[in-house]
Amino acid sequence: MALVVCKFGGTSVGGTERLRAVAQRLVDRKLSGDRVVAVVSAMGDVTDELVALAQDVTHDPPEREMDMLLATGEQVTIALLAMAIHALGHKAISFTGPQVGIVTDSGHTKAKIQEVRADCVNDALDAGMIVIVAGFQGVTPDGQITTLGRGGSDTTAIAVAAGIGADVCEILTDVDGIYTADPRVVSVARKLDVVSYEEMLEMAATGAKVLQLRAVEFARNHGVVIHCRSSFNDMPGTIVREVDGSMEQAIISGVTHDTSEAKVTIRDVPDLPGVAAIVFARMADANVNVDMIVQNVSEQGMTDISFTTPKEDLVRAKHAAAEVVSELGARHWFVDESIAKVSLVGAGMKTHPGMAAKMFRTLADADVNLDMISTSSIRVSCVIDGDQVERAVRALHTSFGLDEDAVKAETSPAFLEGA
Amino acid sequence: MALVVCKFGGTSVGGTERLRAVAQRLVDRKLSGDRVVAVVSAMGDVTDELVALAQDVTHDPPEREMDMLLATGEQVTIALLAMAIHALGHKAISFTGPQVGIVTDSGHTKAKIQEVRADCVNDALDAGMIVIVAGFQGVTPDGQITTLGRGGSDTTAIAVAAGIGADVCEILTDVDGIYTADPRVVSVARKLDVVSYEEMLEMAATGAKVLQLRAVEFARNHGVVIHCRSSFNDMPGTIVREVDGSMEQAIISGVTHDTSEAKVTIRDVPDLPGVAAIVFARMADANVNVDMIVQNVSEQGMTDISFTTPKEDLVRAKHAAAEVVSELGARHWFVDESIAKVSLVGAGMKTHPGMAAKMFRTLADADVNLDMISTSSIRVSCVIDGDQVERAVRALHTSFGLDEDAVKAETSPAFLEGA
Repeated sequence: MALVVCKFGGTSVGGTERLRAVAQRLVDRKLSGDRVVAVVSAMGDVTDELVALAQDVTHDPPEREMDMLLATGEQVTIALLAMAIHALGHKAISFTGPQVGIVTDSGHTKAKIQEVRADCVNDALDAGMIVIVAGFQGVTPDGQITTLGRGGSDTTAIAVAAGIGADVCEILTDVDGIYTADPRVVSVARKLDVVSYEEMLEMAATGAKVLQLRAVEFARNHGVVIHCRSSFNDMPGTIVREVDGSMEQAIISGVTHDTSEAKVTIRDVPDLPGVAAIVFARMADANVNVDMIVQNVSEQGMTDISFTTPKEDLVRAKHAAAEVVSELGARHWFVDESIAKVSLVGAGMKTHPGMAAKMFRTLADADVNLDMISTSSIRVSCVIDGDQVERAVRALHTSFGLDEDAVKAETSPAFLEGA
Repeated sequence: MALVVCKFGGTSVGGTERLRAVAQRLVDRKLSGDRVVAVVSAMGDVTDELVALAQDVTHDPPEREMDMLLATGEQVTIALLAMAIHALGHKAISFTGPQVGIVTDSGHTKAKIQEVRADCVNDALDAGMIVIVAGFQGVTPDGQITTLGRGGSDTTAIAVAAGIGADVCEILTDVDGIYTADPRVVSVARKLDVVSYEEMLEMAATGAKVLQLRAVEFARNHGVVIHCRSSFNDMPGTIVREVDGSMEQAIISGVTHDTSEAKVTIRDVPDLPGVAAIVFARMADANVNVDMIVQNVSEQGMTDISFTTPKEDLVRAKHAAAEVVSELGARHWFVDESIAKVSLVGAGMKTHPGMAAKMFRTLADADVNLDMISTSSIRVSCVIDGDQVERAVRALHTSFGLDEDAVKAETSPAFLEGA
């Protein structure tokens, strides 16, 4: 008998027909002997519809009231899901984020979880019920309703799993696990059986969309085992957990890519101490998230500073760049929105030098030009031309032996042994 | 400076355009120097849509989950209304029923308010805010979300008004007050300036739909002055309050009618002690609400028992009647769904005998046949044929001097002096 938290996203609960399927799945799980907690998002496009309703009232809604509004989306889902389970003849009870004791700070629309008081969940489980919890929402210590922002429902699920000491937190979506690359780009991409938190964090940070970075961080910090699997079938997915250092690991776990960033370059900045500090202080003041940074020393005591930033921050980044240019007496600034980032992630890199060199050689052989490079101990990322990203991903996937056919040719591939 | 609670129903907040109008009205009220609390219902048909969604999942939803679902309707309204006020440049804060401390019993879908802990309302008012409270919902002492059932938002408004000691609770709807009769039936009906709680209770119980019986009872028990007025203009409406006995009152305040009931008759019941007790015990067991009861002694030791009941209880009433017939050895039972009830209500009846006789004479002159009669100290009700109800209401309205023209002919009509 396991204690499991199952999180279903908006697509999986989009419509009453799908809700009934989720209810059946939870009942089957209960009948198999497990204690079952479900965390659910708002149905389908409900959150977008609520945002549109608010925009119809005002273009600048107060964040506290936005949370009051958005929290209704998940509340509808939990009530209907509990009803659907009752209709199958089983006991279920729904709880809002505030009811279940998801205590957050007061950062409305992007609150951080501080504590989970899950007593009512344990009581309901003891009473033989399937427990349904609203994702994405919480409550401040003084009773204000908050929402958790992007990736909030995954974070709720992991926080509840941590709070009740669940054996596993299943994240059920429309994909059946974590792949060595995006299967839409690489047809021979393989599902991974196990990845470490560390690798998953790098993959999520560099473009893998199945799990939100923030949820993985929460899971790592609280030792929650994640099982990322399909909501449409019972096949095992990908386990994300602490991987024992004594286990032989794959050198490379996957190739990720990301086309959601743009590159900002400030040309001919005086090459003096403190210049970079000024540039990025201005960006931080303007609430611009900065990912990769490259500074080149150019001729005559001048330098170029380039950085990547999410396209959604670009309007603010342009304003800040214009100010920086005039403040520092730089020549000018420009933006390239057609870039892509391709990354190689693998815990085995730590103990296998030469992976970066092999990556650059592979990209060169594929006639892909490198624009920026950044590395961590288990990742190498390159900014390239957006037009070349699919070619780059496929070349790396093949070159590092990740293609499905290559794996089948081996008898016992090391990177499957962790499962 | 007054402390006012303003309650807006679903029609008044149906759509963002109307919400903006309500926001403007509240801001104007605030600018006039009042401390303002608004209580609002779900927008337009939202509650019906949520019920339909639940019915799509199961025909027998658990009541606790129904409350979880329905409570979202008002939560959407309060958030949007607070946003609309912010958009006008004023401070507002929304609270759900649980947040504002509307503590109820655990009678899900029809919970009764036990206590109002309105501290957060007072704090927000002190901070210069317009306070928006979700109607229709509350919370049990152990944190379960409840809804208050029919008339719930009016009851919330009056409970909040009682809790904060408001000077008046305004109920704003699409009609501009309480009339001497339904203006759709009697074109010369007049708006009343003042009615007593006692009269309003009788009028609400006999067909006046502007205020729910339950809300008026709550107001009377807590001494809350109600101002029933239009949400579309600033004209004064009707005040419902304790009327000083020393004041000269109108003999008759109004004529009400109700076509929502049916009559059930059980024929040839043995005329023995305890028979009526058995009949109505069975009805109570079957959760059938009974309004008027008439028992006629008929020939040979047999009697007929007739009663009226809301048509929505009729299916259960028929089942119970069939059982009663076989249990008591009665001859048979039948139902008349085409009845109507017409009532004359007036506090002055207490001190003016002969009103009932005058009513019966008026109806006889109008060729209206009486089927059942019931009276209280300030009301006479007659069950008549449904086809004759409009004729009956008009005849009584004229006969008792309530027509607008008749009033204008007098210089200082007694029943306007209470205003």
